[in-house]
Amino acid sequence: MDLKELIAAIEPADKAWADKAWERLRSQIRPRGSLGRLEEMAARVGSICRTLQPDLSRKLIFTMAGDHGVAEEGVSAYPQEVTAQMVFSFIQGWASISVLASHVGADVRVVDCGVAADLPPEWAVEHRKIAKGTGNIAQGPAMSWEEAERAVLAGAELVMKAAREEGYRLFGTGDMGIANTTPSTAIVAAFSGKPVAELTGRGTGIDDEAWKRKVQVVERALEVNRPDPDDPLDVLAKVGGYEIAGLAGAVLGAAAAKVPVVCDGFIATAGALIACRLVPAAKDYLFVSHKSQEVGHAAMYGLLGLEPILDLGMRLGEGTGAALAMSLVEASAKVLRDIKTFEEAGVTDTGH
Amino acid sequence: MDLKELIAAIEPADKAWADKAWERLRSQIRPRGSLGRLEEMAARVGSICRTLQPDLSRKLIFTMAGDHGVAEEGVSAYPQEVTAQMVFSFIQGWASISVLASHVGADVRVVDCGVAADLPPEWAVEHRKIAKGTGNIAQGPAMSWEEAERAVLAGAELVMKAAREEGYRLFGTGDMGIANTTPSTAIVAAFSGKPVAELTGRGTGIDDEAWKRKVQVVERALEVNRPDPDDPLDVLAKVGGYEIAGLAGAVLGAAAAKVPVVCDGFIATAGALIACRLVPAAKDYLFVSHKSQEVGHAAMYGLLGLEPILDLGMRLGEGTGAALAMSLVEASAKVLRDIKTFEEAGVTDTGH
Repeated sequence: MDLKELIAAIEPADKAWADKAWERLRSQIRPRGSLGRLEEMAARVGSICRTLQPDLSRKLIFTMAGDHGVAEEGVSAYPQEVTAQMVFSFIQGWASISVLASHVGADVRVVDCGVAADLPPEWAVEHRKIAKGTGNIAQGPAMSWEEAERAVLAGAELVMKAAREEGYRLFGTGDMGIANTTPSTAIVAAFSGKPVAELTGRGTGIDDEAWKRKVQVVERALEVNRPDPDDPLDVLAKVGGYEIAGLAGAVLGAAAAKVPVVCDGFIATAGALIACRLVPAAKDYLFVSHKSQEVGHAAMYGLLGLEPILDLGMRLGEGTGAALAMSLVEASAKVLRDIKTFEEAGVTDTGH
Repeated sequence: MDLKELIAAIEPADKAWADKAWERLRSQIRPRGSLGRLEEMAARVGSICRTLQPDLSRKLIFTMAGDHGVAEEGVSAYPQEVTAQMVFSFIQGWASISVLASHVGADVRVVDCGVAADLPPEWAVEHRKIAKGTGNIAQGPAMSWEEAERAVLAGAELVMKAAREEGYRLFGTGDMGIANTTPSTAIVAAFSGKPVAELTGRGTGIDDEAWKRKVQVVERALEVNRPDPDDPLDVLAKVGGYEIAGLAGAVLGAAAAKVPVVCDGFIATAGALIACRLVPAAKDYLFVSHKSQEVGHAAMYGLLGLEPILDLGMRLGEGTGAALAMSLVEASAKVLRDIKTFEEAGVTDTGH
């Protein structure tokens, strides 16, 4: 499969099934509209899955990991070695995503898209390393176009395989990569054209001085690389990252497999944005899990035209927000499927 | 147990355990503060349960049902018979609360606090009927002081028994009762002193004319009964309801048993407000699940000084919002307990 074939495989969700879903939702034993956004989500799930009996219980989160050459500019509060250490924590079940995914009954699969360290082959991760970290975007491109395409395809193929061969019916996307709020900020700046300072946050917790440096680094990355906002793969290759490419691919793979996908916060939404710029119909399959505390996130989901499901002041990544929101998307599927209608239950209906 | 004994049994949550919880949360392998409100919830759970290893997996929602004499004023879109019909749907597992409680792994117990119909004794509900519906609050008090106290104690006893004898460790509260947004509006008007029109919503979906009538009915209820805002039991007896009393009692029972409790939307929060006016320390044990679409809800949680966890545009009741938020409270307990520390996991800590 190449990128053209992947793009061609994606069809819009089925509006006729959304109509059928709304009809059922409006006939259930409760006041019309009383489940608010759960109903909107339920109708979207109906149109994605082409059924009124969706079962999203088989859930999988892909946590995509990669390193970033730009870390050498001092844009993160943590050293690069932490990426690999956290990958180890994920597979041991020690980390935040391990705990929250387990809570909602989702599996986690960790993907080495481009960690700077050599990860031992026996580690239970998907070994899809494109390179040992990206180039420093403050000085040149993150990667080549060919590498960007390979990383996107890797993410898409993993998701499509999990849907088709393992029966997963709901995906989440999350990230791990020291310094990766910097390329994500560059991506949203490239697409939105907004001033970098308005889009730059504190990442894992940098101080004022490091924040100013981060703004300058992102500005320099845009000047040096001149990413073309009309060409999403160009933006990805020049100022993105390997895990961001994998996150974009995961959204495309879910859309190709006609399975809903929930993206995490700032970095995962950057990947989702790349995906939906490549294939606008992919948006039909996408849910944005939560409002990240990272300041540029609002511009991202604004560009996507999607409202996040949760607002819990989180800014962790790993897929933690996706995990919690996946449970709500799954709940909306059960709302559609399992709440009885007035007629089925013999409850007096006044049509309100 | 009388009300005085119940009140005396409630102690504040333990601040020292909150401090210990924050210490652990800050040492976990993630940036400080990165889980936002989940951390605040986790620290509160620590202080409520007096442990760093809380287990809230045994969850129970009490859906309190009652009817309202004021329904005869035409303040609801549904006839009174629907209360009993919905109780039947709850025990059959057909309703919204059945589906959402099951999704989060919570049990549901339906309580007949004052349904107007005779419910068959073989129905799997807690039969605690005080009377067949309240008096019409537009003409006189909802109930006597003695009835109000009995209904509060019934709710408290059910929760305390479930905590002590059945091992439930997290409670939710929800309501069923045609016309019960009307007494709930009267309660928040009595405590807040705000104009009734600003606090009156559309309930299950009334039109403009019925809304104007509802405002007048609430104003009349306050004029006729003159509830004393400094006396919560007076407010409850004069303009409340039997299920609202049960909902207040459930919060007090949870506080007495030192177990967290999550209230649903407009009606359940009205009950929680009564509880916290009776015993301010009860608030330490209370979580407000979600922002109801019902317009007066913001004034209620404003008076409580608690911020709702979810904002999904819901306005259903039954405990549906509580169910979804209980899963997040449970998740916060797992965050506290299960995410490893930098030291435990051997991850490089920079103190950010």
